[in-house]
This record gives sequence, C-alpha cells and structure tokens, in this order.
Amino acid sequence: MGKRRTLKLGAVLHGVGGSASGWRHPDMPADASVNIGFYKQQALKAEEGKFDFIFIADGLYITEKSIPHFLNRFEPVTILSALGAVTSHIGLVGTLSTSYSEPFTVARQFASIDHISGGRAGWNVVTSPLEGSALNFGGKPHPSHPERYRIAEEYLEVTKGLWDSWEDDAFVRDKETGVFFDPAKMHRLNHKGEYFSVQGPLNIARSKQGQPVIFQAGSSDSGRNLAAKTADAVFTGPESIEEAKEFYRDVKQRIIRNGRNPEHTLIFPGIGPIIGRTEAEAEEKYRQIASLVTIEQALDYLGRFFEHHDFSQYELDAPFPDLGDFGSNSFRSTTDRIKRRAKEQQLTLREVALQAATPRTAFIGTPERVAGLVQQWFEEEAADGFIVGASDPNGLNDFVDLVVPILQERGLFRTEYEADTLRGNLGIPVPENRYTAARKAADSIVNS
Amino acid sequence: MGKRRTLKLGAVLHGVGGSASGWRHPDMPADASVNIGFYKQQALKAEEGKFDFIFIADGLYITEKSIPHFLNRFEPVTILSALGAVTSHIGLVGTLSTSYSEPFTVARQFASIDHISGGRAGWNVVTSPLEGSALNFGGKPHPSHPERYRIAEEYLEVTKGLWDSWEDDAFVRDKETGVFFDPAKMHRLNHKGEYFSVQGPLNIARSKQGQPVIFQAGSSDSGRNLAAKTADAVFTGPESIEEAKEFYRDVKQRIIRNGRNPEHTLIFPGIGPIIGRTEAEAEEKYRQIASLVTIEQALDYLGRFFEHHDFSQYELDAPFPDLGDFGSNSFRSTTDRIKRRAKEQQLTLREVALQAATPRTAFIGTPERVAGLVQQWFEEEAADGFIVGASDPNGLNDFVDLVVPILQERGLFRTEYEADTLRGNLGIPVPENRYTAARKAADSIVNS
Ligand SMILES: Cc1cc2nc3c(=O)[nH]c(=O)nc-3n(C[C@H](O)[C@H](O)[C@H](O)COP(=O)(O)O)c2cc1C
Ligand SMILES: Cc1cc2nc3c(=O)[nH]c(=O)nc-3n(C[C@H](O)[C@H](O)[C@H](O)COP(=O)(O)O)c2cc1C
Repeated sequence: MGKRRTLKLGAVLHGVGGSASGWRHPDMPADASVNIGFYKQQALKAEEGKFDFIFIADGLYITEKSIPHFLNRFEPVTILSALGAVTSHIGLVGTLSTSYSEPFTVARQFASIDHISGGRAGWNVVTSPLEGSALNFGGKPHPSHPERYRIAEEYLEVTKGLWDSWEDDAFVRDKETGVFFDPAKMHRLNHKGEYFSVQGPLNIARSKQGQPVIFQAGSSDSGRNLAAKTADAVFTGPESIEEAKEFYRDVKQRIIRNGRNPEHTLIFPGIGPIIGRTEAEAEEKYRQIASLVTIEQALDYLGRFFEHHDFSQYELDAPFPDLGDFGSNSFRSTTDRIKRRAKEQQLTLREVALQAATPRTAFIGTPERVAGLVQQWFEEEAADGFIVGASDPNGLNDFVDLVVPILQERGLFRTEYEADTLRGNLGIPVPENRYTAARKAADSIVNS
Repeated sequence: MGKRRTLKLGAVLHGVGGSASGWRHPDMPADASVNIGFYKQQALKAEEGKFDFIFIADGLYITEKSIPHFLNRFEPVTILSALGAVTSHIGLVGTLSTSYSEPFTVARQFASIDHISGGRAGWNVVTSPLEGSALNFGGKPHPSHPERYRIAEEYLEVTKGLWDSWEDDAFVRDKETGVFFDPAKMHRLNHKGEYFSVQGPLNIARSKQGQPVIFQAGSSDSGRNLAAKTADAVFTGPESIEEAKEFYRDVKQRIIRNGRNPEHTLIFPGIGPIIGRTEAEAEEKYRQIASLVTIEQALDYLGRFFEHHDFSQYELDAPFPDLGDFGSNSFRSTTDRIKRRAKEQQLTLREVALQAATPRTAFIGTPERVAGLVQQWFEEEAADGFIVGASDPNGLNDFVDLVVPILQERGLFRTEYEADTLRGNLGIPVPENRYTAARKAADSIVNS
C-alpha cells in the first residue's frame, strides 16, 4: 500500500434507534425519528467529532410488527438535504433501493444533494430485502434475490452514466459572448438495457466531487460482487473480528479481480458501541437496554428478517426451529447467519430472539477499551473505518466526547477535516468524466 | 363569503430565471440555478417579506435548445428540504410529475418535508408536458393529454389516502407502559385502481397541517377539472385581467359543482413584475431584459412549447405558421393561446417568438402602480394571490422592499405570519383524517 491508511468514521442517525425498545430509554425523545431538532443536533455532534459522514438507513414496507423507528421516520433524500443545509463538512449518505425507483430521478436527487452540500453526497445502494415492499409499488411480485442484484448493477451503470452527462467544463457562462454552455460537452447516455431505457442528459451538472460516493450494504455473494464492481464503500455487519477480517479480505480480493484499486473501496463494519466510565457502568447500560425488550418484541424483531414470520407459534425453550430455505430471498446474509449459528451453538428460540433484538456488541466498555478495539480492527485489516450506530440515546455523544479524542491522540483519526467534499475526506479519487477521458485518450493517439 | 379575504403571496425561485438570457444580466450570479447561497438568500428574502410560500418549478427533459435554467438546476424535493432547514415560517411548494414517479415515494417525500419544516410543505402536481420526458423513464410512449390527467387523478387519490395512514393520535409513545402506537389507528389503503396498486400504510405520520397543500398548474379543461376536484391552490398564467377573471370564475364554479368550498381553493396567477423608481426606469429595465434575447433564442424558446419544434424553418416576418393540432399533447393551454392570439392579432412569427421569450408583463412600473394592479386583480376577483417570478435578478428584492410595504399599509397583506404552517397562513383548513372522520360518523350513529 502507498500512503499510510487513516481511520474513517460514519454515524448512523436513526431517531429512536434500531431496536424495539430504545425509544423507552429515559433520555430518548420518543418522537426522535421525526424530530428535526434531534437530527440536527446529532449531525452537528458528528461533525464536531470530525466524522466523515452521517448515514441514513431506510425501508419500504411496514406492518404492525415493525420496530418503532421504521413506522414513522424521515425519508432519506429529504432529511439529508435538510442536514446538508445546516452542516459544512460532514458527508451525507442515504439509503435508496434500486428495486423500486427510477434511475433518472435518483441520479438527479443525489446530484442535487451533492450541489446543495458542495460535494458531500453519498448513496447507500440497497435492493430492498422485504418482499412486502412490492405491495406498495404496483403489486407485481418482488424480484428474486439474484434478479434484484442484476437490476442493481444495471441501475448503477445508468446513474453513473447520467452523472457524466456534462463534462466538468461544459458550463462556460460567458456573459459577454452569451455562451452559457458548450454543446460538445453535453452527452446523451442512450442506455437501452435489460431493465432500463434512459436517454439523458441529466438536467444537473457534476459537483465538486465528480459523482456522489457509492455505498453498498448487502453481504451475500451477489452483494459482495456488486460491491466489488461498483462501490466506493461497503457497509457490513460482522459479529466478530474474525468474520470481519474474512469479509475484508474477500471483498478486497474481489475488487482486485475486477481490476479496481482496493484502496479506493473502503470497508465499514457497523458497530453499536456501549460506553461507560467503568466496565461495570457499560455492562449496566447494556442490561438497561436489554431489559426494555419483552420476549414478544424479540420474536417480532427476529420475524422481520424472515418476511414477518410468526415465531410465537414455536416452543420458546426448544431448539431453534428448522426453517429450511425460508428467508433467503430477503435478508439472505442475515438469515443464513442466524440459522448457522443457532445450529452450531445449539441455541433455543428464546436465545436467538433475545440476541437478535439486543445484540451484545463487542464494542462495550470504557472509552479506552472501545478505542483499543477500534484500533485493533483497523490495524488488523478487519475494517477501514466504522459506521457507529449508537444503541442508547447518549451513545453518539459519548463516542465523540470520549472515544474520538483517544483515537486522535493515537494519531489514528483526524483532528481537522482534510477537505470539504466526502471523497476528499475519505481519500478516494474524483472519477474522471468518461467523455473527457475518452476525448483525452483519442487526443493522445492523434498526437503520438 | 365569510371572513374578509386577505391577499396571499408566493415567490418562484428559479435561479438564473425562466427566460433564455436572464443569466446575462450583470447582477445575476451565472450559476444561480445550482447556487445554494443564492437560493437561501432568496428564500430568506421572501420570508422577510412575509410571503406565504416559495415555489420551485420543474421539468424532466432537456435538449441543447432548453433555456439555461432548465439545463442545470436543483431538483425540487432536495432544494425544498434544504430551504426548510434554514427558514421557519414560509411554505415550501415544489413541482413533481404524476406521470413519471411512484405515489408511495412521492407521498413519503412530501410528508417528510412536512415534518422537517413543521407543516410547511406543498406539492405542485403536474403531468409533464414534454413528450421527451418518456425517453428518460423507460421509453414507453408519453401518455396522451387526457390519459395523463386520469393518471394524475388516481395518483392523488393514492397519495391523499397514504397521508391518512396514521390517525393524528396514533402515536401514543408511553414510555411507562411501552405502548408506542395504537394499531387500531394505523390503516392500510389497499388501493387497486386502473393505474396504481398500493397497499400502505405509509411509513411516516401526518404533520401539523394534516396533509401537504396540493397545488395544480394545468389550465386546460382537464387541468381545471383536476384542480376543481383535488387542489387547495391553482397556479395559472393569464395574460390579462379579463382572462384571469374568466379563469377565476370558471374554476371556482367547477369547485362548487364538485361540492367543495370555493374559499378553500386559492387561485394564483403567476406574475413577473418589473419595478422601477419611475415608469421610465421600469421600461428601461424591460428593454434591458428584452435586448439580451436573440431571435434564434426566441425561436428555440417558442419551440419548446411545441415539442422542440424547429421554427427556424419558417419565414420570420410572414404570418405565424398554421400548425394545426400540433402541440396540443404537451402544453395544451399555452399552445392553444399562442395559436389563437397569433390569428386574432395577425402576428408574424418574429412577433410571436419575441413575445413568448420576453413576455411584456402588465405588472410593470413604479411600486405604487404594481401594488395598485395587485390590489385591483385581488379585489376584482381575478386572483386570491400571486406567485411572483421575478424577471430580473433584483425583482424579488424590489418586490419585498418596495411593493410589500404598500400592500401592508393598505391592509391587504399581513405584517406578521398568522401561523407556522402553510395551511394556517393560507387560511385553508387541516383536512380531517378520513378514518377518524368515519369513526366519528359511526359513533354519532350509535349514540343517536
Ligand atoms: C449492514 C447492512 C445494512 C443494511 N441497510 C439496509 C437499509 O438501510 N435498507 C435496506 O433496505 N436494506 C439494507 N440492507 C440490506 C441489504 O441491502 C440487502 O438487501 C439484504 O441484506 C439482502 O442482501 P444480502 O443477502 O446480499 O445481504 C443492509 C444490509 C447490511 C448488511
Ligand atoms: C402557470 C403554470 C405553471 C406550470 N409549471 C409547470 C412546471 O413547473 N413543470 C411542469 O412540468 N409543468 C408545468 N406546467 C404545465 C402543466 O402542468 C401542464 O402539464 C401543461 O400546462 C399542460 O397541461 P394543460 O394543457 O392542462 O395546461 C405549468 C403550467 C402552468 C399553467
């Protein structure tokens, strides 16, 4: 590797949180998921901590059994745009599904966030795990897992193509001569593929960072291949450093096999740190969070990964039921792991459900201990950075106030932003416009 | 009519402007259409002037002949969200097409803007006039004019239904008991219609104003009917007070025939005022603006209303060519008017093109004269308010600094916001949730 690696950090903003009962915590605003003041405070806190980006997850289907945050939350494009207007350096990464949207609109919206924020937009590309999503978008059957990834791949070809509609110097804007743009530097994509037909050009220019940063968040084989072909960053959810290292190695190798530079695609495990002034205080915090979850909620939470399967029909203290292939068209990487681990460790349904609802994070303890784990994972190449999704309402504040200074002291993490674009801070290059590149290549042949 | 009518005002924010050459004006930032600083300044200026709302227009198809603003501009949902985060009282109205989008996503995005802004969102429903739009969205043929309006009508049924997914008191959020929401107050729409199939519920609650405000901006017969059935406000582009009065009477009558209250749907002509300290200064400003347009640009501008028809093929100083039905599947109300007027007034192509490219507004002159026209149109029921789309870069500032104080002095316009929601300021009621209403109706039958 060339220059020294430096740690990158993102913060998941998810209102009342990713668990069934986080909203009941005494310090949590119970309406946090639609509370703009809460989101602003969290975004500004992450920016105070010099985080690379904030991250907004998303979903397109809810039922009575969905966790509170999913029922009533901000939509990613809108909340990111709003937060872009009140921050100045932090990246703005939002989740949007390629299975239920139009590439022209999505390319436009992320490009527009990129202009609003001066080059800080990122798009977390997902394929929508939940089959029920189809019911909200026309009712045709949910595409199968492999097909969703084929759609996603073509979708990304289209959006990346649209983002190059205008070369960087296309807009001349010469008031004297009246020339606003150079028509030779405006390009039609004319894409006609298996799933999409899009002419272009896009009606918005490239931003300072060229194109929004592409995140990818599926960990199955197809998901890893999509990441290797197209992503600038990968969000993943490993449960141990060994799993994280295996994932890291595997994805970097796939990137190399695709002829891309592995230093330019960063791998971000998601972590939900629980920080206490002492180990005991941290343990107590975990117990407090876990105690808020009833077994019924835990079964519902588990059920969501399996198309809202009703787990209350099984014996709680019997071994985890054999579900066969069930669940693999949805959150495949997650359901595979749940089944595998239940078998290996001979867990009961109760154990599986409670662990799923309140996972016991490895990143628990004093600020020194959590900082040490961050350092270890980073140095041992289990991660290029982390996406911090706090489990309790003070988690992000604690991480910024207590853990970040230790990481800075050890020279692992920045004390000032290096750049004002997301690519600049992540240290990944601005992609050259494809038409400019082609023109240069043609010129160099003519001149040689 | 009940309580006294009061004037309402909106401001079109459109970067370098709605004309071919406005960007060349010495005071115009040439990148205004993607300049967040410019948009913030304009939004805050409109809020300083106690305007009811800012308004963002939109389009989905460009060619080399499109005017500068259309080539490279912010996308409405994103720029409105951003401006919502830096303003506190002004409404946020954005244009979005029902012909090339998904109702679940659009309902969600506007609801989310509504939450971000504390109840200030509005949606200008359009059907996409340009046939070329289809090429960016799958390449199936552009639906015909009547079909686009049928789609729009069903689309609005769906979005309004989705906005009622949650009754206003559905989210209990009782930390003691652990009850986050009342499942009896969550509703599935289960819409299955000719064009859309959408189950719901929407994954975001109603805001303080119940539902975003619906604007409608098509003036053909089908457009007027859609407005009469569904709109809270209508944006129109009349060229004279007579035309405006005819439109006003006609649409209000259609509203009454639909069993709705005509006071609750407000009619907004768009105006492009040109203000000078003297009449002569205003005339000089108009000449300056008009002089920036070449005849080639004027022909292109005109051509856009006719599917980018190439008008350069005709003799410039001969009578306007006979185009038959051509153009009526696009901007029908506009192309009908252009043809009708050219015939009535025996205009040449050159005259039609120059008038189209730099319309000579009636609202030109000193602040007193412009205020007087506003008052006259309002009092004579040609308008409930106006959408001000300035033709020169200082136009909005001039209107706020010079015209608004006169309107306030005459008691026509507010000096302070009455409310912090868009509905509150417009004086139109919060629509009751349909399920709450049904429950009340059922209860009153049981109790009677
Ligand atoms: C860490 C992580 C975060 C994810 N975040 C989202 C999300 O916010 N929204 C979503 O629809 N899917 C999300 N997914 C789901 C994936 O996009 C994918 O659809 C799902 O995991 C199934 O694909 P897979 O089998 O490749 O993992 C996430 C997955 C992972 C591993
Ligand atoms: C004042 C006014 C403003 C409009 N603004 C937009 C707009 O921003 N975007 C758009 O696609 N169409 C816009 N339209 C077009 C209409 O929505 C409609 O598609 C077009 O006028 C054809 O319909 P009609 O024949 O009913 O007028 C506007 C129309 C009018 C009259």
